[in-house]
Amino acid sequence: MPVNSTPQDSSSESTPGGVFAAALTPLNPDLSINRAALVGHCRWLLENGCDGLAVLGTTGEANSFSVEERIDVLDTVIAGGVPADTLIPGTGCCSIPDTVALTRHAVESGAAGVLMLPPFYYKGVSDDGLFAAYSEVIDRVGDDRLRVYLYHFPQMSATPISYDLIERLLTRYPGVIAGMKDSSGDYANMAGAAKRFPGFGVLSGSDEFLSPLLRDGGVGCITAVANIAGNLAADVYAAWRSNDGTAMDAAQQKLNAVREAACAYPLSAGLKDIMAGHTGDKSWRTVRPPLVALDAAQSAGLAARLEATGHILPPLG
Amino acid sequence: MPVNSTPQDSSSESTPGGVFAAALTPLNPDLSINRAALVGHCRWLLENGCDGLAVLGTTGEANSFSVEERIDVLDTVIAGGVPADTLIPGTGCCSIPDTVALTRHAVESGAAGVLMLPPFYYKGVSDDGLFAAYSEVIDRVGDDRLRVYLYHFPQMSATPISYDLIERLLTRYPGVIAGMKDSSGDYANMAGAAKRFPGFGVLSGSDEFLSPLLRDGGVGCITAVANIAGNLAADVYAAWRSNDGTAMDAAQQKLNAVREAACAYPLSAGLKDIMAGHTGDKSWRTVRPPLVALDAAQSAGLAARLEATGHILPPLG
Repeated sequence: MPVNSTPQDSSSESTPGGVFAAALTPLNPDLSINRAALVGHCRWLLENGCDGLAVLGTTGEANSFSVEERIDVLDTVIAGGVPADTLIPGTGCCSIPDTVALTRHAVESGAAGVLMLPPFYYKGVSDDGLFAAYSEVIDRVGDDRLRVYLYHFPQMSATPISYDLIERLLTRYPGVIAGMKDSSGDYANMAGAAKRFPGFGVLSGSDEFLSPLLRDGGVGCITAVANIAGNLAADVYAAWRSNDGTAMDAAQQKLNAVREAACAYPLSAGLKDIMAGHTGDKSWRTVRPPLVALDAAQSAGLAARLEATGHILPPLG
Repeated sequence: MPVNSTPQDSSSESTPGGVFAAALTPLNPDLSINRAALVGHCRWLLENGCDGLAVLGTTGEANSFSVEERIDVLDTVIAGGVPADTLIPGTGCCSIPDTVALTRHAVESGAAGVLMLPPFYYKGVSDDGLFAAYSEVIDRVGDDRLRVYLYHFPQMSATPISYDLIERLLTRYPGVIAGMKDSSGDYANMAGAAKRFPGFGVLSGSDEFLSPLLRDGGVGCITAVANIAGNLAADVYAAWRSNDGTAMDAAQQKLNAVREAACAYPLSAGLKDIMAGHTGDKSWRTVRPPLVALDAAQSAGLAARLEATGHILPPLG
C-alpha cells in the first residue's frame, strides 16, 4: 500500500493510506455467505484500483453476521488469495468478548489493521466508558502488531468518537491507535482530526471528500462506492501522489457523479444490485434483514442513473 | 404467574402478566459473570414480589455479553433453582444467527417467552426489513412453544416497533407474538397498543405507568427499578387484582418515589451500586464498559435520595 506522505505527518511511523473499499459481502439466496463470490469480488476490487479492503464494515453488513461467520469471511478471503496485509476488517461489536475474539483473529491472520466501532447499543455513553471499552479490548488482545482504526459513524452507531477520546487513546496506546474512518459526512471533523493528530491516519468514509482530505492531511478513503468505482477513487489518489491537481479534480468529479447516483438508493442493497447486473448472478441482490433488496423499479432507476454518469465497471477477471 | 384478565382481553389465549424485573447481571471485578450472585439475586427478586424475570435486557447489560455468556446466564439461573417458566430472557441481537441461537436455547430451556429487540445497528430501516428479520428468526426457530415479546425502546435501539409492524406480525404469527415491552416512556403508545391489539400483552418498561396501563388494558411491567423495589410494584399489581383502586394509587406513589431517586443516576450502574450496599459485596458495583460504575459522590447521593423515600430493600434470603 502507498505510504502516507502528507506534510502534516511528522511521526516516524508511516500510516497506510490509499483507497479502501468497504467491501460488500455477497450472500446465497438462503442468506448464507457466498464464499466464491466473496473471493471473486475482493480480488476484482484489488485488481481495479483498491489498495485495500475494509471487509465487514457497515456496507459489508458486518453486524448482521455472527462472530463465527465474520471469522469465516476473513479466513475465506485470505484462503482465496487476497493478501492479508491489504485487509482492515471491521471487528467492533457491542460486547467486549466478541470484539476481542474478532480483533485477535484479525491480528493473527496478518491483517493490516482493524476497523473498530465503539460498543453501540447504549446511547449517550461517556468518553470514560468508551475509553474503558477500547482499552479493555486492546489490553486483552495484547499484541504489538495490532493497529486500530476508530470508526466514527454517529448516524449509524449513534456513538461518536470525540477528539478528546482520540487524544486519550493515542496517549495511552501510541502506535496501536493508527487512525480513523470518519463516515460522519462532517468534513470539518475529519480535516480537523487530520490536522490535530499528526501521524493519525484519517480516512474519509465519503468519496466526495477524498481529494480535499488528502490535501488537508488525510491518508485516503474507505467507502462503499469503491465497490463499483474503486478505479475512479484510485485515479484521484494517483493524481494526488503525482501532485497533479488538475487531474485530481477531474477524477474527483467523475467519482462524485457515481457516488451521487449510488446514494440515491439504499446503499448496500443498491451496490449489490449493481453487482448482480454486472456479474449476471441474481443472488448478488440478496441482503440480510433488516436490509431489503431493491425492488424492480428501484433497480431499473439505479441502473439508469449509473449509466447516465458514463461510468463503466471494470470487466470481471 | 397471574393470568391477564383485563376487560380488553378477548382472546382465548391468556397472556402472562404481572411484575417482571429487568434483572441486573452481577459481575466479578474481572468483568466475568458472578454466577453465585446472579442466582442469589434472581431468587431474591422472585421471593420479594416479582412474578418473573426478564434477564438479559438493557438493564442486564445483555448486549455487552457474547452469545455463549448469554446462554450461560440462562443456564446458570435455571440450574440455580429459578423456575424456567418465570423467565423472559432478552434474545434480540443485530444478527439473525445470534438471535436464533439465543431464542432456540430459551425455548428449549422452558422459558415463558423471549424479549426480542429488533436488529439495531442499521438506522432508518423499513417495517418490511424488520418484519423480514422477525420472520426469519421465528421461522428458523420453528417451535410452537415460542412466545415473542417485542421490545420497543427507540431511545436505546433507535429502531421503533410500529403498530403496523405489530399488526403484520400478529397476523402472520398468531399465538407466537405474545406482547411487547414498551420502554419508550410514551404512555399513549403503550396504552394505544393495548387497546388496538386485544390479547397482545403490553408491559410498561417504566414503573410510573404500571397502574395506568393496567387500567387501560396492559398486563404489567418489566422494569429496572423492580430490581430494588419489586415488592412495591407487586403491591400495585395485587391491589389491581383485588380491584382496590385506593391501595393501587397509594402503592404507585411509593413506587414512583423510588423510581425518581433511582433514575437521577445512570440506571444500571446505580442499581448495582444499591445492591452493593445492600449485600455488602463491593464487586456488585462492576459494570461492563461502555457503562461506568458510579463514583463515590454519585454513590452517596443515590443512597441519600433512596433513603429519603423511606424505601427499605427486602432482607436477603
